[in-house]
Parts: sequence; structure tokens; C-alpha cells
Amino acid sequence: MTAELVEIPARRGKAAPVRAGQHVTIVNTHGTQVVDTWAFNRADVTEWMSMEASRAWFMRIAASVGDSFVTNQRRPILTLVEDTSGCAHDTLIAPCNAPRYRLLGVTGHHDNCRDNLHAALAELGIAIPATPPSLNVFMNIPWTADGRLEWGEPVSAPGSHVVFRAEMDLVIAFSACPQDILPINGRSGRTREAHFSVW
Amino acid sequence: MTAELVEIPARRGKAAPVRAGQHVTIVNTHGTQVVDTWAFNRADVTEWMSMEASRAWFMRIAASVGDSFVTNQRRPILTLVEDTSGCAHDTLIAPCNAPRYRLLGVTGHHDNCRDNLHAALAELGIAIPATPPSLNVFMNIPWTADGRLEWGEPVSAPGSHVVFRAEMDLVIAFSACPQDILPINGRSGRTREAHFSVW
Repeated sequence: MTAELVEIPARRGKAAPVRAGQHVTIVNTHGTQVVDTWAFNRADVTEWMSMEASRAWFMRIAASVGDSFVTNQRRPILTLVEDTSGCAHDTLIAPCNAPRYRLLGVTGHHDNCRDNLHAALAELGIAIPATPPSLNVFMNIPWTADGRLEWGEPVSAPGSHVVFRAEMDLVIAFSACPQDILPINGRSGRTREAHFSVW
Repeated sequence: MTAELVEIPARRGKAAPVRAGQHVTIVNTHGTQVVDTWAFNRADVTEWMSMEASRAWFMRIAASVGDSFVTNQRRPILTLVEDTSGCAHDTLIAPCNAPRYRLLGVTGHHDNCRDNLHAALAELGIAIPATPPSLNVFMNIPWTADGRLEWGEPVSAPGSHVVFRAEMDLVIAFSACPQDILPINGRSGRTREAHFSVW
């Protein structure tokens, strides 16, 4: 974990190649920042990390340390190997997009995770034909026994982190979620940068 | 509800156009059959019903009567208006596909919902660039307060049904799930036909 920390700029996306066996650390630098995360098979980017297939794999709403996320081809792609965040890391909620902010009353442009994903991949020359459901790292969406969901506030300490092991050669993509209306990044509505490293 | 009942053949898919304001009834003819369901904006089939956006819309793990499912553009597409099935209708689990059956020990071909979806759409001349998460009608996946999921057995009576109202001109697609290894279609492993009508 002495690898270089790369910034995921506030309200922006970032993508990077990762080799099988390498580790990816995501740091919640300020403790309040949700990081939407996607992963793609480097050899065929239409094979992507699938929240719906992953839940069927580990048979939980959210992953525990030791659980692997799998692709739409049901192959392990990222394994959660360490987690100091105390957060369940939401698998249920869609990445925000432009229509989402229009529904929340925003007129005109609003940064959003969907566009950040596609822009980050485009920087690596990658285009994908749809927007997969995201793994919402550090996002606190509590559920109840009767199935109600809630927009929770952040629960992670500043500097806390998760570590994933890459199970195949992949491209990982992040968006420092620009949601500043709902409380998922804190009630201040202040969206911040986060960091990651590949090692 | 005197409209013609159309068969969704056992282990196969079926798709049909539906106009805004029409209703779609899905009948669990034998009471044990999961029907994977998808919906697409008829004018632009890359706008599809999104489980991840729908959960963020109704803020529950599963829909209640009165709840609308929304598309990846966050527009209502299907509203659940009647339900005699007693089932929560799973939104969490991926449609089965060929790799899923290989993991379950099947060698060679096994019918699967992913292929059924694409074949049913192809009969209408429609191709889509990915496989969206499905709404798994009549599929009983209980969750616990601590987030564990279970492959539940069917809970719906023979002939019980759900009714959806179409909120836009759409194409609806079904697959009578051919899962005969896990108990989701009953412990007998007997997969059956189901029926639907558009009225």
C-alpha cells in the first residue's frame, strides 16, 4: 500500500487498467464521499461487473470481506479483501444521471456519475454500449426487514479504505459522486475528491 | 381482463408491443413458475426498465401495488396495479444465462432467460446491446434484516396474477424461467408455461 495515490477529482471520473492479481485501494479521503465503481474485462469490455449476478453469487444484499463480485459472464472480477470503512457499500441504487437531477429540480447541467463513467473510459479509448449498475463504495443505503430503503448519511472515517483484488485483467472506473441534494455525501452537500491506488 | 391469454411456453421467451394506458396481466398458471420480465421504450429500445433506478424511485427492495418501475432515463414505464400472488417479485437476482448453468454443473446446452429474452425480441426484429437486470415476477427471494438472501420456493397460488399499467408505448418481454436446479420454480424442478394478456 505504498503505491502512488491517484486522485479521483471531486465530481469527476477516473479509470485505470489493473492486472490480474494486483490490488486496488480506494480511500475515502474526507470520509464523506461516495465513489461509484465499475469494472470491465480488459479483453472484452462488454463483460462487466454485475451487481445482479454478484448478489446471486454471494447471496447477500451487500458484500462482506472475502466475497467476490462477478461479471455478467459469472466470473469473479473483484474480491473485497479489506475494509476499514464500516459501510455496507450499496449494490441496489443506480448511478446518478442527468434525468435523475432533473427529477430533483435541477435545471441545466449537473455533473453525474453516468457521464463521469463514460468520460473516464473515453480517456482510455473505451466505449461501452450501456451503463451497468454501479458498486457504490462508501454509500450507506440501509434496508429494513420489510424492504424499505433510506438515503443514509456517510458512516466512514476520513482516510478509511477498501481493498479489492483483481481476479482478471480489467479496467476499473470510478466516479466521485456529485450528488449534492440527497444526503448520501453528507448533509453539507459538499462533494469531495477521493483517491485510489493500484499495487 | 377478458383479453386473449397468450402462452409463454415453458422454458421459452415471448415479447409483445403494448400501448401507453394498456394493461398487461401475467398469470402464474400453475402457481410455481417464475416469469423474468423486461420492458423497453418502443421508440428507443436502449431506454429500458431498470431495477436499480426503480429501487431508487420507490425506495424499497421490491415494489408494492401502486409503485411504478422506471427506465434508465428515470421515466415510469410499468406500474403495478394489482397483485393476487402474495409474492414480493424479486428485483435483486440476475436472469439466468449459459455461464450460470455451467457453474451449476450443466455440461452442454441449457435453456436460459438471457437467451430467451434476446430470441423473443428478435422475433419482433429488435436487438439490444446488453442484457438488463430483469424483474423476476413470482420469484421468491427472501431477505433478512442482516442482508442474507435465499433461493425461496414459489408462494403463489395456481392462476394468481399481477397486472401492470403501461406508462409509455413499450415492448414487454418475458421468459418462463427454465431454472430446474435451484428451487425457485419448485422443488420438483418441473418448469411450466405461464400466460399473459394485453388489454
